[in-house]
Amino acid sequence: MAGNSVLLAAVSVLSACQQSYFAMHVGKARYKYKVMAPAVSGSPEFERIFRAQQNGVEFYPLFLIMLWMAGWYFNQVSATCLGLVYMYARHQYFWGYAEAAKKRILGFRLSLGALALLAVLAALGIANSFLDEYLDIDIAKKLRH
Amino acid sequence: MAGNSVLLAAVSVLSACQQSYFAMHVGKARYKYKVMAPAVSGSPEFERIFRAQQNGVEFYPLFLIMLWMAGWYFNQVSATCLGLVYMYARHQYFWGYAEAAKKRILGFRLSLGALALLAVLAALGIANSFLDEYLDIDIAKKLRH
Amino acid sequence: MAGNSVLLAAVSVLSACQQSYFAMHVGKARYKYKVMAPAVSGSPEFERIFRAQQNGVEFYPLFLIMLWMAGWYFNQVSATCLGLVYMYARHQYFWGYAEAAKKRILGFRLSLGALALLAVLAALGIANSFLDEYLDIDIAKKLRH
Repeated sequence: MAGNSVLLAAVSVLSACQQSYFAMHVGKARYKYKVMAPAVSGSPEFERIFRAQQNGVEFYPLFLIMLWMAGWYFNQVSATCLGLVYMYARHQYFWGYAEAAKKRILGFRLSLGALALLAVLAALGIANSFLDEYLDIDIAKKLRH
Repeated sequence: MAGNSVLLAAVSVLSACQQSYFAMHVGKARYKYKVMAPAVSGSPEFERIFRAQQNGVEFYPLFLIMLWMAGWYFNQVSATCLGLVYMYARHQYFWGYAEAAKKRILGFRLSLGALALLAVLAALGIANSFLDEYLDIDIAKKLRH
Repeated sequence: MAGNSVLLAAVSVLSACQQSYFAMHVGKARYKYKVMAPAVSGSPEFERIFRAQQNGVEFYPLFLIMLWMAGWYFNQVSATCLGLVYMYARHQYFWGYAEAAKKRILGFRLSLGALALLAVLAALGIANSFLDEYLDIDIAKKLRH
């Protein structure tokens, strides 16, 4: 399985680097807007950047689980493409939110769309595996006939 | 292994949907209690819902890792059942906390219990695999004799 | 693969226990410094402990993904050792931050170092797997010659 997951692994490591990059940017914003740890409020600019990163943190485990489940149970290449779309959306969201609270909406919707599609692929793949394993029905094969 | 993890995969995707649902509810509460982004305080009702979701976020990666380790190294069906108990406990916790800070306790304790049991199963399974692989001692086999 | 990941599994479960331990300590600090839920501010001591745990939460999924990718695609034993270094650094960070905001720096840098090394190993391993699978070039073999 490790061999068949190399694209998922690559997207996972890339997205983890992206998350670290966002976290680093929050650290920089602390100095720029003089919000000293452990405070997380006091400057609206800092708060927006902080919330943008926090939102990414909240969704990151959901993204990882949907990516891997869609990749393992449905198809690796589709999951990888949607993973890259999600990363792009998160990029738009973060820099939009850093500018103004309203500018976060577009990136956020795109990221939810990518996540929802990954969830659908994962659910289809898992349902097919489940039927195959526990009820001995292979839908994917029947569709091909 | 992908074939043998289908129940774990199903619980993971379901719980990720539950987490998204909690996050969506925080978004709704923003409008209901007029707490505009990036603020996260100002209304005690909103703060409770927000903290309830945040607590779920904090524990979610712990839950996933315990679920998969217990499922892979001990037994998939037990891990799946405990995973469902955890999801139920998180549901109780979230809606309890949304009502009153005190009402979060019961769901929280149940979720910790499920998590602790998953940790015990995972530790037993890993210890057994470790002994088997590195010291060539198979306890599970010996117990069966 | 489950058999070949037993060390990664052990580090994951241990680190999940460490995260639970930090979370428990935040709960205790609530009572000690009289910061009642859902509030998360009011006492600088509590805020430091809370932020120390939150930072651990933010980085935990990154750590897990880097650990597993480095372990699966590069080498399990190196990933495990770096995982233990990361756990030690997180311990130093948490208790340093609990004492004073400045004392968090050393542990934080060590944790970032361990994470960066894991990322490098993961990237090397994934690149090698990718070249091998999609372009049929096995660098690891060539280096051995």
